[in-house]
Amino acid sequence: MKKYVFKFNEGRASMKNLLGGKGANLAEMIHIGLPVPPGFTVTTEACTRYYSEGEKIAEDILQQTFDVLGDLERETGKTLGSPGNPLLVSVRSGAPVSMPGMMDTILNLGLNDETVEGLARSTGDRRFAYDCYRRFIQMFGNVVLNIEHGRFEDIINDIKRRRSFTSDTELSAEDWQEVIKSYKDLVMKHTGREFPQDPREQLVMAMEAVFRSWNNHRAIVYRKINKIPDELGTAVNVQVMVFGNMGEDSGTGVAFTRNPSTGEKEIYGEFLINAQGEDVVAGIRTPRNIKELAALMPDVYRQLTAVSDLLEKHYKDMQDIEFTVEKGKLYLLQTRNGKRTAAAAVKIAVDMVKEGLISKEEAVLRVSPEHVVSLLHRRIDSEARMEVIAKGLPASPGAAWGHVVFDPDEAETLGQQGRKVILVRTETTPDDIHGIVMAQGVLTSRGGMTSHAAVVARGMGKPCVCGCDTISIDYEKGEFKTGDLVVKKGDVISIDGSTGNVILGKVPMIDPDLSSEFRELLEWADEFRVLSVRANADTPEDARIARDFGAEGIGLCRTEHMFMGQDRLPVVQEMIMAETKEEREKALAKLLAFQRRDFEGILEAMRDLPVTIRLLDPPLHEFLPDAEELIQEIAEFKAKGDAENLKKKQEILKRVRALSEFNPMLGLRGCRLGILYPEIYEMQVRAIFMAACSLAKRGIRVHPEVEIPLVSNANELKQLRELVESTAAQVMNDEGIKVEYSIGTMIEIPRACITADELAHFADFFSFGTNDLTQTTYGFSRDDAEAKFLPYYINRKILTEDPFIVLDRRGVGHLMKTAVNLGRGVKENLTIGICGEHGGEPSSVEFCHEIGLDYVSCSPYRVPIARLAAAQAALKSEQNS
Amino acid sequence: MKKYVFKFNEGRASMKNLLGGKGANLAEMIHIGLPVPPGFTVTTEACTRYYSEGEKIAEDILQQTFDVLGDLERETGKTLGSPGNPLLVSVRSGAPVSMPGMMDTILNLGLNDETVEGLARSTGDRRFAYDCYRRFIQMFGNVVLNIEHGRFEDIINDIKRRRSFTSDTELSAEDWQEVIKSYKDLVMKHTGREFPQDPREQLVMAMEAVFRSWNNHRAIVYRKINKIPDELGTAVNVQVMVFGNMGEDSGTGVAFTRNPSTGEKEIYGEFLINAQGEDVVAGIRTPRNIKELAALMPDVYRQLTAVSDLLEKHYKDMQDIEFTVEKGKLYLLQTRNGKRTAAAAVKIAVDMVKEGLISKEEAVLRVSPEHVVSLLHRRIDSEARMEVIAKGLPASPGAAWGHVVFDPDEAETLGQQGRKVILVRTETTPDDIHGIVMAQGVLTSRGGMTSHAAVVARGMGKPCVCGCDTISIDYEKGEFKTGDLVVKKGDVISIDGSTGNVILGKVPMIDPDLSSEFRELLEWADEFRVLSVRANADTPEDARIARDFGAEGIGLCRTEHMFMGQDRLPVVQEMIMAETKEEREKALAKLLAFQRRDFEGILEAMRDLPVTIRLLDPPLHEFLPDAEELIQEIAEFKAKGDAENLKKKQEILKRVRALSEFNPMLGLRGCRLGILYPEIYEMQVRAIFMAACSLAKRGIRVHPEVEIPLVSNANELKQLRELVESTAAQVMNDEGIKVEYSIGTMIEIPRACITADELAHFADFFSFGTNDLTQTTYGFSRDDAEAKFLPYYINRKILTEDPFIVLDRRGVGHLMKTAVNLGRGVKENLTIGICGEHGGEPSSVEFCHEIGLDYVSCSPYRVPIARLAAAQAALKSEQNS
Repeated sequence: MKKYVFKFNEGRASMKNLLGGKGANLAEMIHIGLPVPPGFTVTTEACTRYYSEGEKIAEDILQQTFDVLGDLERETGKTLGSPGNPLLVSVRSGAPVSMPGMMDTILNLGLNDETVEGLARSTGDRRFAYDCYRRFIQMFGNVVLNIEHGRFEDIINDIKRRRSFTSDTELSAEDWQEVIKSYKDLVMKHTGREFPQDPREQLVMAMEAVFRSWNNHRAIVYRKINKIPDELGTAVNVQVMVFGNMGEDSGTGVAFTRNPSTGEKEIYGEFLINAQGEDVVAGIRTPRNIKELAALMPDVYRQLTAVSDLLEKHYKDMQDIEFTVEKGKLYLLQTRNGKRTAAAAVKIAVDMVKEGLISKEEAVLRVSPEHVVSLLHRRIDSEARMEVIAKGLPASPGAAWGHVVFDPDEAETLGQQGRKVILVRTETTPDDIHGIVMAQGVLTSRGGMTSHAAVVARGMGKPCVCGCDTISIDYEKGEFKTGDLVVKKGDVISIDGSTGNVILGKVPMIDPDLSSEFRELLEWADEFRVLSVRANADTPEDARIARDFGAEGIGLCRTEHMFMGQDRLPVVQEMIMAETKEEREKALAKLLAFQRRDFEGILEAMRDLPVTIRLLDPPLHEFLPDAEELIQEIAEFKAKGDAENLKKKQEILKRVRALSEFNPMLGLRGCRLGILYPEIYEMQVRAIFMAACSLAKRGIRVHPEVEIPLVSNANELKQLRELVESTAAQVMNDEGIKVEYSIGTMIEIPRACITADELAHFADFFSFGTNDLTQTTYGFSRDDAEAKFLPYYINRKILTEDPFIVLDRRGVGHLMKTAVNLGRGVKENLTIGICGEHGGEPSSVEFCHEIGLDYVSCSPYRVPIARLAAAQAALKSEQNS
Repeated sequence: MKKYVFKFNEGRASMKNLLGGKGANLAEMIHIGLPVPPGFTVTTEACTRYYSEGEKIAEDILQQTFDVLGDLERETGKTLGSPGNPLLVSVRSGAPVSMPGMMDTILNLGLNDETVEGLARSTGDRRFAYDCYRRFIQMFGNVVLNIEHGRFEDIINDIKRRRSFTSDTELSAEDWQEVIKSYKDLVMKHTGREFPQDPREQLVMAMEAVFRSWNNHRAIVYRKINKIPDELGTAVNVQVMVFGNMGEDSGTGVAFTRNPSTGEKEIYGEFLINAQGEDVVAGIRTPRNIKELAALMPDVYRQLTAVSDLLEKHYKDMQDIEFTVEKGKLYLLQTRNGKRTAAAAVKIAVDMVKEGLISKEEAVLRVSPEHVVSLLHRRIDSEARMEVIAKGLPASPGAAWGHVVFDPDEAETLGQQGRKVILVRTETTPDDIHGIVMAQGVLTSRGGMTSHAAVVARGMGKPCVCGCDTISIDYEKGEFKTGDLVVKKGDVISIDGSTGNVILGKVPMIDPDLSSEFRELLEWADEFRVLSVRANADTPEDARIARDFGAEGIGLCRTEHMFMGQDRLPVVQEMIMAETKEEREKALAKLLAFQRRDFEGILEAMRDLPVTIRLLDPPLHEFLPDAEELIQEIAEFKAKGDAENLKKKQEILKRVRALSEFNPMLGLRGCRLGILYPEIYEMQVRAIFMAACSLAKRGIRVHPEVEIPLVSNANELKQLRELVESTAAQVMNDEGIKVEYSIGTMIEIPRACITADELAHFADFFSFGTNDLTQTTYGFSRDDAEAKFLPYYINRKILTEDPFIVLDRRGVGHLMKTAVNLGRGVKENLTIGICGEHGGEPSSVEFCHEIGLDYVSCSPYRVPIARLAAAQAALKSEQNS
């Protein structure tokens, strides 16, 4: 006969699927000799049968349950339902995977009108016994009979009001008896039958309630999101009650085997003397620091310390335990891996390697890459109290505080004076860069994750909250409103670019730290990973940060950000406004000098490492002022009679209009620009090779990789490859020195993926631009989608993830695989990487490892995440192979 | 020994690859007994050897050539280079495929300082002989020696000036001798050697020149574009000269075996008495109608008629022949299939079936679908002289003339008065529809092939020229400028929407006609095709036109065009401006009544046939006024102090801004709208089924197919399918009648193609929206691409075709195949069609046949084209299988 019920001493931790997490761990603790109250587990298979047999517990399972219960009664010398010496038990759910939505604990099961008296007698405490009984009815009524919790509270409140009591502790045994009577009436009224007095019936009903809770709405949704199979089922744990509320030599508490906040190796937690678990939760009394236990119950504390050591050695991880002390005796009620802060996770993993508890591989696998993001940015102290006044998109991580400023010029001036400011704008444009540079962070009311403000702020590593559409900005009055609140220029706010929170006033913040443990962990990660990790960086400073974070090259250097500097923008505009090729070349000559210095800086900062430089990508109108702004200016100049400026602005407007596009994302940009205006790309290539040659002459090894963006057919790449090669040859000839370089292309258009074999003939490398590839594969404009419908799609589960954050393996990933296969089919040694923002997102990094990319490239601040994620991907695929 | 030289009587028409087209046809004519001057062909294989052996003609080939030449000399009794009785020949290139860029003809080869005298003696005409000689030097000098044509003309002009002659005919034999001396000096100066006097050397040099011309730039480019293999090579034809310039009993001419303009069965052409072929080309004398030959040379005319019949019977196609009459004897110098107008092509194909010359299959294959487009629209008479003043995009085919009007209201008023007007706008918006309706055609200075004007005009079958950016419109002055020309309101212009031409004044036009022959041909096509042909139609009127053209259903009924009617637009705007769901539903209720009538009309017009109705697709802001216009209006109301209107407009502007998107093509549109605002789709579905039920009650069979646009993942389709099903069930329940219907989706996003297996679970049909699919696969915004860079791409051969016109098989086609395979893998009987504009483009239709689609759908006016193209695709694939 199949075994559906296991005594705790028959199980092991490895039987989690059958016994659930809680049951398996209770069994394991007994196995290693820890003091656990005896009990048994009804298996998850019993749950499966419950459902397959029309939501009924089969007779044979009940029989096994009662058989094992008999053993328990013999072991404890107590009997369920015996008025003389009643056995009381707790009933808890326990699924193989910890899952919210599952049933709460029922304590004190076995009590009824008779056994309560037995309990009173055996403990000599009537008040205690009736308090236990009413708690049981309340829990059972709520959890099993579905009576609202508040209805029970109403009854207690009613009697307290009548007695003029303020606290539950004032209620006497008789008061609780009165409460119990009202509770029973409530049950009768609600269910149409008496509160069950038969403890075996109570037990069966509780078991059924556990099984039912497997299919409640919250649990179903949770499983769906987390892809947990519905067939798993939950187990039921039935355990003999121990009481922490039997006097001053009793108590209850929770403890971590290490400090979950810092990771320090010390027992950490809190306890209450003379209390049951619920009392800690209810928050009526303030719990005491676990260390005080050393003085109060030295013996128990010693035991607890030993237990802590034993559990860690056994589980090889920090444990979160629940314990109860009944009349001086320690019992463990639960153990599980403890939750911890990112900093603690890192420290514990590294320390445990040094203590010989785990291997380096285990340490690397144990730290969640997404978890440690917070360690890389200044962050708001999680203990801080704060008034969140608005919420926008978390566009660039990190936190900052400062005085509100609406004008970029003012931001610059104040910033230079050393004042901390937050620049608040409806949206930003290239004209605002100088203000962003000097601000602590940026808040905008419009625009998405790829809006100008977001991209620029991420590039600078500055916090940014975007598209915060609940604030309305009035530039004229110098204020913004959110709800009824008016925030004026000069007021202090804080922003959290990791959550999108906007907070009134200054909140305490914690500076980022790459602790020595973190650095060590990352070095171990480097030993295991196959993927290289590069950074997306546009400035020498970013390059240095990236290198410090362990980047092995630049995977994407966006040259357009160099065009947006305050000193360059007028020259760029001059180039765009040029009406002849000659005029354009004159402006380009000026830009050449700038670009050459840019490239020299970045190539030098990345000496010995490859630097992928993408030629100009965005549509030209991004460098020109906004049409509506121009219209307004023109009106003003007209009114003033300023003919000269009027004409100038009118000409700019004309050009802006000529360049304006219906869908700029899909318009004249990327290599299309390079083909129509080859002189622009030629200037950039010239600057790259002048810089490279000049460094090479100084003995500095450089390897520029020239990248052609937005290619959709091989002829584009062929033509531009020729341009790069001839320009490079010419410069190297002029300079009299040779530099190693390569030429490749972004793969960011579906057609590029489909025709990757053709492209491979003209490319030394591919780099997936998964931002644009996601836009085109889905037909989503990221800015519009994230502002208009993506949040709704995710809320309504039409999409499970934002595909701009987590790479869409089914669609975009399919095209990437196609491109990798076609490309390598033609050119076996083709270097392939990714430089979209997905390059720093762990599950996307894992996918990149799986499809055999050579590297991922991400923002400098995500390089450590990517290193860790890449190592985990390699270790996991090794485990699976 | 391999044979490289074939006498004409050794060849056949089937040997085109070896002998070239011209040589094979000359051989064939000899084979069927026609009078062709003797000669021989040096094969294309000789050309291949010429290239493989370092651009030299091999000795054995020369030997064969001279051997055959010897035969020719024996046959004619003349000898090359013999001063007494010189053999003169022509040398012409002749590739297997007719190809521009190949070498011109050289006549009179064999003449030198001595043989010219022999020719003079034998013809008794010194002037004739020296004229022949100088012509030979000129042709040889130009074609073989690469001396510019103009340099020879200069010499003739010089002597004419000195002699005060006005015409070449005034030059005497002595004058020609002087010219010849100067020609020889020119050759000496240019080549550094004497003009070759040895006729055999002349012959070899001419043959080499023919071979070389295979690899000149123009020929290479032409082959590349037309995918003609470089290995084919060209043949050389050497033929004994006959002279049409030997007196009044001689002559030369060209003739078609049927009228190439109308297709009438009659000999058609022109000739000159006493002339050589060149004289016809030179246009010095006016040729005479071929029919006059009947009187002038009755015998020759009779022969020609007989030849014409024989050739048609033999070639089974209308022939274009060249002939020469030398002293009363007819010689044929060339025959080939004749070019013809579309009307003639249709008539000839159908007539030939009736004459028993060809089969119906052949007739159907013989008419080019693109060619007959012109027959379906009013067109400009090809004979007309006209002044093209500007050129835009050919946005909607057909031609029209009318008075220039800039204001849509005025266009409406004048149109209602019966005046013909052309509406000229920078671009059009939904507000202009009433003007477009009453105009003959539309001309815009901005916007591409999918701009509002283009789409609306195509929908109405009205001519439209778009994006004509060389005209600048001044609404205030009521005029537009193009170059220096000012066209004022009321002036007459004509536009040709098939070419993009804008013409000053009224030009003669030909009305479209679906001749009885055309209808017959299409009926035959219907017998052969596998693909169904449907039409894209949004109104009952369009549906009727489509049905008349043979459409078997509606493949795309765009409901948004129904929203743009002048009576609906305010209601649509009311719906968009609604701030609550209730307000929106109130407006929707009004729209419901409109839509119900729309659908009733279209479903009734297509009774018994399926009608695919696409739910609302475009972003909502397309129904609102333009932001800049609003800003201007607001300024005006502000100035006037009109507070009420001011507030109204400001609110609209606010909404316009809220709805504005960076890339509307990829924004909140299609099914995304339906998911965010289910009440809109629900209204449309309700209207569809109310209409369908009401018709069903009247005994009219209808089959609506509800189509969900812009799906990128299966959950979208799942959710909206549920909405359609429940709404349909509800309406049918209310109405008490059942209607057959189906639900499907547009496939127009790469991700939809990749996940077509998932989509197929929720779709009864797929319809490829290849306009959007091309946009997303290429990352091209059509409007921007066609305005900004596609023309350049095509000019520079980066793309060979506009992928919005000819389906991109390599990229878009790959995704389509993927979708077909995945979709049918899940649902074998899935109906799959195409409704993008490619559905009416012949090569795209062929592709649709190849990948196994069920139907193509195109604009009503292209239905006949699609029928023909579908039949050809089926016949071709049968031939190939």
